[in-house]
Amino acid sequence: MDYPSKTLEQVIQSFSELPGIGEKTAQRIALFLLGEGRTVGERLAGGVAALNQNVSRCSVCFNLTEENPCSFCRDPRRDRRTVCVVEDLKDFLAIERTGHYRGLYHILGGVLSPLEGIGEAELHIRELLDRIGPEVDEVILATNPTVEGEMTASHLLHLLKGKNVKVTRIARGIPFGGALEFNDTVTIAKALEGRLRME
Amino acid sequence: MDYPSKTLEQVIQSFSELPGIGEKTAQRIALFLLGEGRTVGERLAGGVAALNQNVSRCSVCFNLTEENPCSFCRDPRRDRRTVCVVEDLKDFLAIERTGHYRGLYHILGGVLSPLEGIGEAELHIRELLDRIGPEVDEVILATNPTVEGEMTASHLLHLLKGKNVKVTRIARGIPFGGALEFNDTVTIAKALEGRLRME
Repeated sequence: MDYPSKTLEQVIQSFSELPGIGEKTAQRIALFLLGEGRTVGERLAGGVAALNQNVSRCSVCFNLTEENPCSFCRDPRRDRRTVCVVEDLKDFLAIERTGHYRGLYHILGGVLSPLEGIGEAELHIRELLDRIGPEVDEVILATNPTVEGEMTASHLLHLLKGKNVKVTRIARGIPFGGALEFNDTVTIAKALEGRLRME
Repeated sequence: MDYPSKTLEQVIQSFSELPGIGEKTAQRIALFLLGEGRTVGERLAGGVAALNQNVSRCSVCFNLTEENPCSFCRDPRRDRRTVCVVEDLKDFLAIERTGHYRGLYHILGGVLSPLEGIGEAELHIRELLDRIGPEVDEVILATNPTVEGEMTASHLLHLLKGKNVKVTRIARGIPFGGALEFNDTVTIAKALEGRLRME
């Protein structure tokens, strides 16, 4: 592609290497940055340049952080008796967004996947076991309800058996606003299995 | 949203202000830049920071350029007797990509649109008229075949009447690989109107 400017070409090329962005969107973004999006571009360039310098992993929970331990692990208002195990930042954000959880987190960094060569050593599983001491009452396994997520949860349950701690799994069921008829049989079976008494 | 890092939050925020990118994609991009996409991020940050500094508009054709006049306007191998008028960079790129055009360009910077308050003064129309001298034989109007694009082409034809120059319009018809039945009536009518003798 014969762009009229090398800088422009390089910017479009870099944007189209990002996940979810094709060349057309990259072009649109570059033109936006040259026009009305000038200040967005300045902030973006500064932020991306600082990203790897400023952001690392908390040595306790492995969440992304700028301090170590992270603000969640240090926060005295969080309930230290509960540790919620999630796959990654997206799931952490999804749970935080509810405003219904006040305990600590543990970021696994993915799920077990023998096909992709992801075993125990590739995830922060050892570190999870190490941090579960007598002050922890409950470990909530909040990996996604996918095949790998379920397998990982089962494996963690097995590993946590030796610890004197309650292990729970997030409920699987019909999503709020969903209709029975549009959910698959596994979801409906799980919803039946996890039924609660109404009072 | 309570991100665990300010830098991360700022980067995700900046990305989601770009056209075509929502918060979920912005999150994915930020995580990519913190992991495998580290070097892409470095190039991206440098490029975006340099963008507005390095890239400006050619004073002849108004294409984006790092030198003035741009490499196209200075290139002695381009045919200086033909000027192709396009709306913006995307259309310039679309024509260059064909490899079938060797003349010069003129970037209008948009199309006439009374509803959006874009008149003659908002586009590089005056500069087009000024540059059409006796050395130019043909002006190709390659604005898009939309309502505004057609209107802009008609208006340019009118303005160019005084000049001793051939004015042409890109052909409108059935796209290559397209089927008659899936094209609208205006396209089919234009395809009939623009029919060429087969020899």
